[in-house]
Amino acid sequence: MRLAVIGVGAVGRAVAEFADSYGHEVTAIADSTGATVESAGVDVSAALAHKDDTGAVGDDDPADALAADYDVLIEATPTTLGDAQPGFDHVRAALERDRHAVLANKGPVAERYGELRALERDSDGSVRFDAAVGGAIPILPTIRDVGAARVSGVRGVLNGTANFVLSRMAAEGLAYDHVLAEAQDLGVAEADPSFDVEGTDAALKCVILANVLANGEREFTLSDATVEGIRDLPGSALELAAEDGRTVRLIGEATREGVRVGPRLVPEHGPLAVAGTLNVAQIDAEHAGRLSLSGRGAGGPETATAVLADVGRLG
Amino acid sequence: MRLAVIGVGAVGRAVAEFADSYGHEVTAIADSTGATVESAGVDVSAALAHKDDTGAVGDDDPADALAADYDVLIEATPTTLGDAQPGFDHVRAALERDRHAVLANKGPVAERYGELRALERDSDGSVRFDAAVGGAIPILPTIRDVGAARVSGVRGVLNGTANFVLSRMAAEGLAYDHVLAEAQDLGVAEADPSFDVEGTDAALKCVILANVLANGEREFTLSDATVEGIRDLPGSALELAAEDGRTVRLIGEATREGVRVGPRLVPEHGPLAVAGTLNVAQIDAEHAGRLSLSGRGAGGPETATAVLADVGRLG
Repeated sequence: MRLAVIGVGAVGRAVAEFADSYGHEVTAIADSTGATVESAGVDVSAALAHKDDTGAVGDDDPADALAADYDVLIEATPTTLGDAQPGFDHVRAALERDRHAVLANKGPVAERYGELRALERDSDGSVRFDAAVGGAIPILPTIRDVGAARVSGVRGVLNGTANFVLSRMAAEGLAYDHVLAEAQDLGVAEADPSFDVEGTDAALKCVILANVLANGEREFTLSDATVEGIRDLPGSALELAAEDGRTVRLIGEATREGVRVGPRLVPEHGPLAVAGTLNVAQIDAEHAGRLSLSGRGAGGPETATAVLADVGRLG
Repeated sequence: MRLAVIGVGAVGRAVAEFADSYGHEVTAIADSTGATVESAGVDVSAALAHKDDTGAVGDDDPADALAADYDVLIEATPTTLGDAQPGFDHVRAALERDRHAVLANKGPVAERYGELRALERDSDGSVRFDAAVGGAIPILPTIRDVGAARVSGVRGVLNGTANFVLSRMAAEGLAYDHVLAEAQDLGVAEADPSFDVEGTDAALKCVILANVLANGEREFTLSDATVEGIRDLPGSALELAAEDGRTVRLIGEATREGVRVGPRLVPEHGPLAVAGTLNVAQIDAEHAGRLSLSGRGAGGPETATAVLADVGRLG
């Protein structure tokens, strides 16, 4: 397939780098300030070197990438809330041209699910977004396999930064601020960590899951979610939990009735108490029972794997 | 799709019972002594009641089911070793008629993989066998998604009976024979438990995994596997392990170089130390990292879910 990669953060970069080895060709790559468009195939290494040198992935206009010759648009710009722009317009541009769109960006799927599906219905192209929930962990593929209608709910740890902070607080008896600073030093937390530690990121993933489970009968956005983060969690809460053989994790829950995210007590050695930056999802399904899936829920190469699996399904 | 269900144990029964709710129709159902064939659609409840009453699923000849009007043959007869009969011939009959075959039966995939793939190449039908490894746990779908060529190996607990025995021995300090008798009372172990406790069942699943990873470059059968069971494991070994924060699990390992199954020390609270009859598989993949998948690896309804997911992929 010919790919237009929009967004050159860790995920977009990895998709572009891996595309060739998955049998695909990048015909356009764009960030917010530049692009390289080449219908005979972009020299990905050169474009990424250009970005490292100049900050832009090429000298073409980013808008040219949307008009380029491609089969699948890869939407890997940062997740934005509310109108989910500019990601939403990128996906719209692809679908209106009857091209496919594969999203790593959670925004359009969490905030404008109904519109996205409506655009897809009017297009010969399809929308896929497995990479937006849990990176390489096959959460959405597994829900599809067992049938969304047979899944009663999904719960789990869906943000690696918050999980790292809670794991470290529990294991070392350290305070939140201390561990957060450490996580920032390690690059596990961003300079502004609010998206992760306030539960927004986990909630967006759960909103996407709820939208998939509801299958159009209801539509959810972030504003429908009940979200509590870990910022105000005292170390003493973790100590009390440990005395009882339990610990605290930031747990997201999605059903076709709604979304909740917040710190919850879980068994210290149970399947939800994953360590470090790992994520885990438990899918409760009729017949199949409870399936637990864990792995790296973020990261450029990991998430790129899910993007390219989605591209493969379009083939 | 029109289904011919061959084999009416727990899996075949559940597939037949669920087929309608998954949008399929059973046009033939057969066990070793009888069949019901009806191109307008078998009355599944009546056929299963007939089996409960008489021991046979109908008064037709089982051979008639193979010649029936169907799109997908579901091979759910018991796993046999060596020539993998009669399952292999059932699948061959389907492929030679350019029909699809979906296997829950491990035999043909573990013991005659090359022949199976050769028959598939000469047929307009496809062979699928996700249900043969790990029941409802999406082990093979996940390997496909990340790409078999990018998976370095799979390891895990792939037999629930052996895991139940080891879990109980460790948790209660009971001897093997005592726990096995208990498992037999509960229906978790068969009267002759050797297939499970000697590691054969786990080894067959690993052989299938190795065949998938090797992708035709090498072919494995059970005779290539190094297999050790849990029959001779003394309770003292579990006690010693526990003193060190570890426990023992029957671990299967598959790579494209080979297959090993045997009791192994694993961290007591680690992801491989699943409890009771649960199964778990760890897939190590380039880019995606380590993915851990756990759930019910056996059981009629659970495995039927995987069979019907395979049927859905043929649609």
